[in-house]
Amino acid sequence: MQAPELAVSRWFNTPTPITLAALRGRVVMLHAFQMLCPGCVAHGTPQAQRAHALFRDSDLAVIGLHTVFEHHAAMTPVSLEAFIHEYRLSFPIGVDQAAESGPIPVTMARYEMRGTPTAILIGRDGRIRHHGFGQEDDMALGAIIGTLLAERAP
Amino acid sequence: MQAPELAVSRWFNTPTPITLAALRGRVVMLHAFQMLCPGCVAHGTPQAQRAHALFRDSDLAVIGLHTVFEHHAAMTPVSLEAFIHEYRLSFPIGVDQAAESGPIPVTMARYEMRGTPTAILIGRDGRIRHHGFGQEDDMALGAIIGTLLAERAP
Amino acid sequence: MQAPELAVSRWFNTPTPITLAALRGRVVMLHAFQMLCPGCVAHGTPQAQRAHALFRDSDLAVIGLHTVFEHHAAMTPVSLEAFIHEYRLSFPIGVDQAAESGPIPVTMARYEMRGTPTAILIGRDGRIRHHGFGQEDDMALGAIIGTLLAERAP
Amino acid sequence: MQAPELAVSRWFNTPTPITLAALRGRVVMLHAFQMLCPGCVAHGTPQAQRAHALFRDSDLAVIGLHTVFEHHAAMTPVSLEAFIHEYRLSFPIGVDQAAESGPIPVTMARYEMRGTPTAILIGRDGRIRHHGFGQEDDMALGAIIGTLLAERAP
Repeated sequence: MQAPELAVSRWFNTPTPITLAALRGRVVMLHAFQMLCPGCVAHGTPQAQRAHALFRDSDLAVIGLHTVFEHHAAMTPVSLEAFIHEYRLSFPIGVDQAAESGPIPVTMARYEMRGTPTAILIGRDGRIRHHGFGQEDDMALGAIIGTLLAERAP
Repeated sequence: MQAPELAVSRWFNTPTPITLAALRGRVVMLHAFQMLCPGCVAHGTPQAQRAHALFRDSDLAVIGLHTVFEHHAAMTPVSLEAFIHEYRLSFPIGVDQAAESGPIPVTMARYEMRGTPTAILIGRDGRIRHHGFGQEDDMALGAIIGTLLAERAP
Repeated sequence: MQAPELAVSRWFNTPTPITLAALRGRVVMLHAFQMLCPGCVAHGTPQAQRAHALFRDSDLAVIGLHTVFEHHAAMTPVSLEAFIHEYRLSFPIGVDQAAESGPIPVTMARYEMRGTPTAILIGRDGRIRHHGFGQEDDMALGAIIGTLLAERAP
Repeated sequence: MQAPELAVSRWFNTPTPITLAALRGRVVMLHAFQMLCPGCVAHGTPQAQRAHALFRDSDLAVIGLHTVFEHHAAMTPVSLEAFIHEYRLSFPIGVDQAAESGPIPVTMARYEMRGTPTAILIGRDGRIRHHGFGQEDDMALGAIIGTLLAERAP
């Protein structure tokens, strides 16, 4: 399945907005999280940071997506900014755009994510190659990334 | 040194406000934290929750204190309430009262805490018996608690 | 229950044999283990080493007991000596004396241990105050040690 | 560099001896360890077991190599067999052949390994593609394996 475009209302850690269209030809790891989700803070977000560091010189782009679908008043961009600062996160992070109605933000709905953390891997051809909910094994994730990086751009 | 009284602007997880005066005769573990402090979330706060569970049937009272001294707009009581919910914290937690001037809240200043997490242990006689900043070893903390619980009330 | 005396065929990390009788008045932590028991290597034995370091200046004596009750040919004193060296264990360790018949060594049988690791805490009066099989929580163990150290010698 | 052939005096967990020659066309992960090496027991060996499970249905062959270069009397095949049993290791493990002189066994010398644990990855073409000494990061290892599996057999 072709990966839907991101809908982001605000970016952190990037001078310009990021689109999947512009990343075509590269491998993308999308890390959807909420700053007050314990499984994200303990596992998913540090894992995304590790992937960002490990594959820094490769064609992998690690992108965070703050998909707030609960406790909206508690996880505002102001709080997220402090979270990013305190946890020393250095990969680009976008705030998933609030829906016109309902608690689920736009990108989260487009990808039919079940919750946070969610890890999505997109191949050089822009197609979704992995969609995982919950704790991901480092070695398994590394193997998928290695496989996707080994593919030729279309 | 006699433990100064708490100055709390709002309580969670307790039907009535808590004072050290009323706890005299019991041992008190004071866990000062900030919800966006990584060392608190990874170590200090889970440790306080474990102590609360382990010594539930003893004379130990575990009390959390949200001592916000930075990123004030990011760690409001609304955010703290969601944090407490998401991390399933069940021990009483007070919001340290904001100072009339300056970023350091009142109780934090009274105890001359250096940052978060801080663990303070108060004996049955109301005196401070341990004041630790940073990550505390579980076994060492358990030993202090065991020693203080073994003392007779004055 | 009064703690039975140790039956040890060989000691490591001590210039002279150790007896519980000679330790009367002190608190004793007995760590029964096997060098090829995964739960010992991962949890119990490092915990005993931590207790040995933490309570070095106290009245606690940490004593290891190699209670081989399976794979006897694989866990000889020669192998144990290399294990102690490689894992940098510095507390005294005795080899539990082989029984005249049957696989269970003498001290293990006297204490009716169920397996390894087993942690036994003996008070200043020589009585067994805690007998735990399997993984012990650091904080709980610390609390028991703190309580026992707080007691007066008989 | 072409991977030198294994020299093994005894195999566990395989009905027939294994040669790299027979594995040509597959990816091979060679995990060199010693049963009394703490870094192996805590990290390297469980990691090899995880790789064995994770890539069970792939073209990766995980092979253990017991490269005893110290404490030879403490790490005999009898001890190794108990170790394999207790740690529930299910991948094939060979005992590196003792040298005619000197403590370093034959395969360890052929690969010029610096110690244990050592992880070596061999591509489908039989060439060494990774040679790492010490603790390996799961994600990095997974990425190398994924990349090598993505290559076509020669």
